[in-house]
Amino acid sequence: RYGQAEEEDQVGTATGLAYTSAGGDTLAIEVSIYPGKGKLTLTGKLGDVMKESAQAAFSYIRSRAEELKIDVDFVEKNDIHIHVPEGATPKDGPSAGITMATALVSALTGRPVRKEVGMTGEITLRGRVLPIGGLKEKSLSAHRAGLRKIIIPADNEKDLEDIPESVRTDLEYVPVKHLDEVLEHALMGDNHESK
Amino acid sequence: RYGQAEEEDQVGTATGLAYTSAGGDTLAIEVSIYPGKGKLTLTGKLGDVMKESAQAAFSYIRSRAEELKIDVDFVEKNDIHIHVPEGATPKDGPSAGITMATALVSALTGRPVRKEVGMTGEITLRGRVLPIGGLKEKSLSAHRAGLRKIIIPADNEKDLEDIPESVRTDLEYVPVKHLDEVLEHALMGDNHESK
Amino acid sequence: RYGQAEEEDQVGTATGLAYTSAGGDTLAIEVSIYPGKGKLTLTGKLGDVMKESAQAAFSYIRSRAEELKIDVDFVEKNDIHIHVPEGATPKDGPSAGITMATALVSALTGRPVRKEVGMTGEITLRGRVLPIGGLKEKSLSAHRAGLRKIIIPADNEKDLEDIPESVRTDLEYVPVKHLDEVLEHALMGDNHESK
Amino acid sequence: RYGQAEEEDQVGTATGLAYTSAGGDTLAIEVSIYPGKGKLTLTGKLGDVMKESAQAAFSYIRSRAEELKIDVDFVEKNDIHIHVPEGATPKDGPSAGITMATALVSALTGRPVRKEVGMTGEITLRGRVLPIGGLKEKSLSAHRAGLRKIIIPADNEKDLEDIPESVRTDLEYVPVKHLDEVLEHALMGDNHESK
Amino acid sequence: RYGQAEEEDQVGTATGLAYTSAGGDTLAIEVSIYPGKGKLTLTGKLGDVMKESAQAAFSYIRSRAEELKIDVDFVEKNDIHIHVPEGATPKDGPSAGITMATALVSALTGRPVRKEVGMTGEITLRGRVLPIGGLKEKSLSAHRAGLRKIIIPADNEKDLEDIPESVRTDLEYVPVKHLDEVLEHALMGDNHESK
Amino acid sequence: RYGQAEEEDQVGTATGLAYTSAGGDTLAIEVSIYPGKGKLTLTGKLGDVMKESAQAAFSYIRSRAEELKIDVDFVEKNDIHIHVPEGATPKDGPSAGITMATALVSALTGRPVRKEVGMTGEITLRGRVLPIGGLKEKSLSAHRAGLRKIIIPADNEKDLEDIPESVRTDLEYVPVKHLDEVLEHALMGDNHESK
Ligand SMILES: [Ca+2]
Ligand SMILES: [Ca+2]
Ligand SMILES: [Ca+2]
Ligand SMILES: [Ca+2]
Ligand SMILES: [Ca+2]
Ligand SMILES: [Ca+2]
Ligand SMILES: [Ca+2]
Ligand SMILES: [Ca+2]
Ligand SMILES: [Ca+2]
Ligand SMILES: [Ca+2]
Ligand SMILES: [Ca+2]
Ligand SMILES: [Ca+2]
Repeated sequence: RYGQAEEEDQVGTATGLAYTSAGGDTLAIEVSIYPGKGKLTLTGKLGDVMKESAQAAFSYIRSRAEELKIDVDFVEKNDIHIHVPEGATPKDGPSAGITMATALVSALTGRPVRKEVGMTGEITLRGRVLPIGGLKEKSLSAHRAGLRKIIIPADNEKDLEDIPESVRTDLEYVPVKHLDEVLEHALMGDNHESK
Repeated sequence: RYGQAEEEDQVGTATGLAYTSAGGDTLAIEVSIYPGKGKLTLTGKLGDVMKESAQAAFSYIRSRAEELKIDVDFVEKNDIHIHVPEGATPKDGPSAGITMATALVSALTGRPVRKEVGMTGEITLRGRVLPIGGLKEKSLSAHRAGLRKIIIPADNEKDLEDIPESVRTDLEYVPVKHLDEVLEHALMGDNHESK
Repeated sequence: RYGQAEEEDQVGTATGLAYTSAGGDTLAIEVSIYPGKGKLTLTGKLGDVMKESAQAAFSYIRSRAEELKIDVDFVEKNDIHIHVPEGATPKDGPSAGITMATALVSALTGRPVRKEVGMTGEITLRGRVLPIGGLKEKSLSAHRAGLRKIIIPADNEKDLEDIPESVRTDLEYVPVKHLDEVLEHALMGDNHESK
Repeated sequence: RYGQAEEEDQVGTATGLAYTSAGGDTLAIEVSIYPGKGKLTLTGKLGDVMKESAQAAFSYIRSRAEELKIDVDFVEKNDIHIHVPEGATPKDGPSAGITMATALVSALTGRPVRKEVGMTGEITLRGRVLPIGGLKEKSLSAHRAGLRKIIIPADNEKDLEDIPESVRTDLEYVPVKHLDEVLEHALMGDNHESK
Repeated sequence: RYGQAEEEDQVGTATGLAYTSAGGDTLAIEVSIYPGKGKLTLTGKLGDVMKESAQAAFSYIRSRAEELKIDVDFVEKNDIHIHVPEGATPKDGPSAGITMATALVSALTGRPVRKEVGMTGEITLRGRVLPIGGLKEKSLSAHRAGLRKIIIPADNEKDLEDIPESVRTDLEYVPVKHLDEVLEHALMGDNHESK
Repeated sequence: RYGQAEEEDQVGTATGLAYTSAGGDTLAIEVSIYPGKGKLTLTGKLGDVMKESAQAAFSYIRSRAEELKIDVDFVEKNDIHIHVPEGATPKDGPSAGITMATALVSALTGRPVRKEVGMTGEITLRGRVLPIGGLKEKSLSAHRAGLRKIIIPADNEKDLEDIPESVRTDLEYVPVKHLDEVLEHALMGDNHESK
């Protein structure tokens, strides 16, 4: 059922955590790649901040293509589409930054995303992970969805004390400072060769 | 008469189900292809969510071209136009996603759409089918229009109990989780070779 | 005088019928073609629905170029401009669809439009002709302008009973379901070879 | 002084007549051509109707390039700029259509515009000249500016009776139905060869 | 200090005079050129009229490139950026037209602009100089900034009588009708060869 | 922790100082470069003035590429992205001009930015540094963040007297008139060869 952890490890899909006035929710970030001219398409009723966040994630990846074992020519000869279902629900904010980056790297390298992992954190153009809001509500929704491991910005560690004991002990929290750490925890196996 | 089931199986046209404050209605999704540069045109007074839904459907198909027996070069050397008559009526929402995907695959493969089939469901970038609203009203309009088989999201099966007995027994409901199942039920014959 | 039937059969011009709160009016649709890159320009203070209607007409023609004896290369190497005088008067709605399609086919094939013919009807991407409103007012203005034959959507035949006897007997009504029938009645001679 | 008839016959400049709530005014239409890619630039705080009018004038000329002795390649390899000083004054409406067409043909053929001629009239895509408003006020301003010959739409002849005797006898009115007649009266000499 | 006359003769910078409700001010117009594709960029919080004014200045220069000893190929293979500091102050109106034209010609020919010269005047597409407003306030700010020679439109000569005697005798006014005269007074030396 | 001085000297990142109604703040300007077509992308919820400021900085650098030891071809064959975290915070104004210029030159030459340096100042198209507001608040936030050297516009020297003694003696102020001086103080080592 939608709003649950993925049933299988997936290539090109990562699970984010959203926070609105109505509470927390999980967010599937989907990435699709097909022959094109390097265009980036963003859909899912995304606000400007979330769109800019996707652009930052994509630029970071392009500028670090070699280290990430991504073929630069591949990026220039394909179009990339990032979509966030459910299409009628407005979404915004920078906190899906590392989730979009993870889904992109997964799609571009073929490495599956571990299905039990959720994540939240703003990404910068150098891959730094910045703090986010609503960690408590996001944790509750991650717990409800059956996720096991939650990647969070190191600067949010101080907020863990506000999360109910029962939830905090069920979830494994992984505080990170850089996208490199996110990818290490979220992606399976080593780098396959770039598609 | 318009608002009725198609008189013949058609290539590039599929029947969706819409739901507005004024009740349910059937919706013809038409796809036209002609020599061009891979541009996608969307008309019929469509709202942003419906346009994004069409983009998601198109991207899914492009990323799965090989499995769907569509020639990638063909897509890049043609323009595609999706139009939803009646042109003066505003339309929006993600629930025509699988209908637009079906009409696109039909137009790109030459496989006709079965004329007695209607459908409703949001599509994601990986081809998953997400639940929609207004199934009762949509069913009544499908029944009025003379459709026989209705493809619905598996997550909407629980709403079938709300549909009047007389309508429910006349219509065959097909709950699906993925676009592959939609295409299997909606398209005729095997894949022709791509046009 | 403007607002009158054309004095000669014309290539690239067709006469539509408009209907506003101020009553009916005739509408000259003009098409001009010149060397370019396949761009479509739309002017005459047209609303979005009317512009989308022109796009649908153009896409239908491009997807059916061979049957209509239009050279596909010719379309790609020219720009097409559709203009609707009087330039200061706002115009909208889908009912000029078949008129724009007729003017386009005339311009692209060199076949003149019969000067005594007026027409009204929405066009779909498959060339179907959908019903329109205001047939009574449109008929009165067609009569005033000296037109003789009026092409209407088959679904509007039921509205003929509302038209004053004196006007109805002066005008020949041609109900149609598809653009093929429109072109047969509105264009002169056989297809010349495409320009 | 500005607001006066030109002191010399000019290439690429024609004098139109404008009409606002503040009365009539003369309007210099300037056209400039330089190496480029066939782009049309429109400046001078022009409203949408006036811009569309310029596009119609330009399309008419491009579709009739051969008859007007204009080199089609020349149009595609240059950019064209139409500017209407005074840049801070908003201008709109279709009545400068024939003036813009005249200035364009002058610039593209090198034939000077006769300095004593003013003109007003909407142009259509086939070169027809449609009626305009404010002929009385426009005539007064043309008279004040020292113009001698005024080209008007044939359908405006009936409005000449409203113009004061003293003005009407000083000015020569030339009623026209088609741009061909406008060019004959406004441009000097025969066609030079296209630049 | 900013708001003062330039300390040296500069290439690609000219001093304009602005007039707002807050009084007069001097305005540095800066032009930068670098390898590109002939694009024109306009920044400095400029209003639409001022942007169109820059486009008119640029088109005039392109259409007169040969006479101005500017290499047409050079224009097509570079991008040009016009910026007007201070970037947070909104600016509008056509009166910086001749200043932008002067800075452009200076940048494109390498001829320095005389540092003691300020100027104000609308430019047309043929290089004519049209009258402007606020000459009194502009003169006071030019005087404060230490400028010595002010180029003004010939049609503004009548406004000189309104300027305080003390200012008027300190400044040399140069009334002009055409950009050729502006360039003659504002640019140093002969044309260098185009860069 | 974010809002602190960088822990290492960085390539492509410089520290600016912002000033809002809520007080002063430090601002990380990040620049990323990857294979492309010379496009400039600006993100971080930047207002129009700040975006224009980035364009001015970029144009100055492109027009001075040779002196700055930047390979012009490199600029044309890559895309450049400037991002300013935190992505949800609106930012505007011209005072980050020299910071963006410094981050750009660092990214394009490979020279690291000294981590203990902060800066504020508007940049013009010729590299001049113009005065800014809020120096006191900016100084306090620079002090809090542990910066040691602050580059300011020469025209702001007069404002130093308003800064608390304790802060002023901890920080080294460097007043500058031109970007050349900024780069000399902010960048490490000599020019490496352009990447
Ligand atoms: Ca949800
Ligand atoms: Ca806490
Ligand atoms: Ca309907
Ligand atoms: Ca239920
Ligand atoms: Ca009319
Ligand atoms: Ca009836
Ligand atoms: Ca005037
Ligand atoms: Ca009358
Ligand atoms: Ca100032
Ligand atoms: Ca006076
Ligand atoms: Ca901060
Ligand atoms: Ca002070």
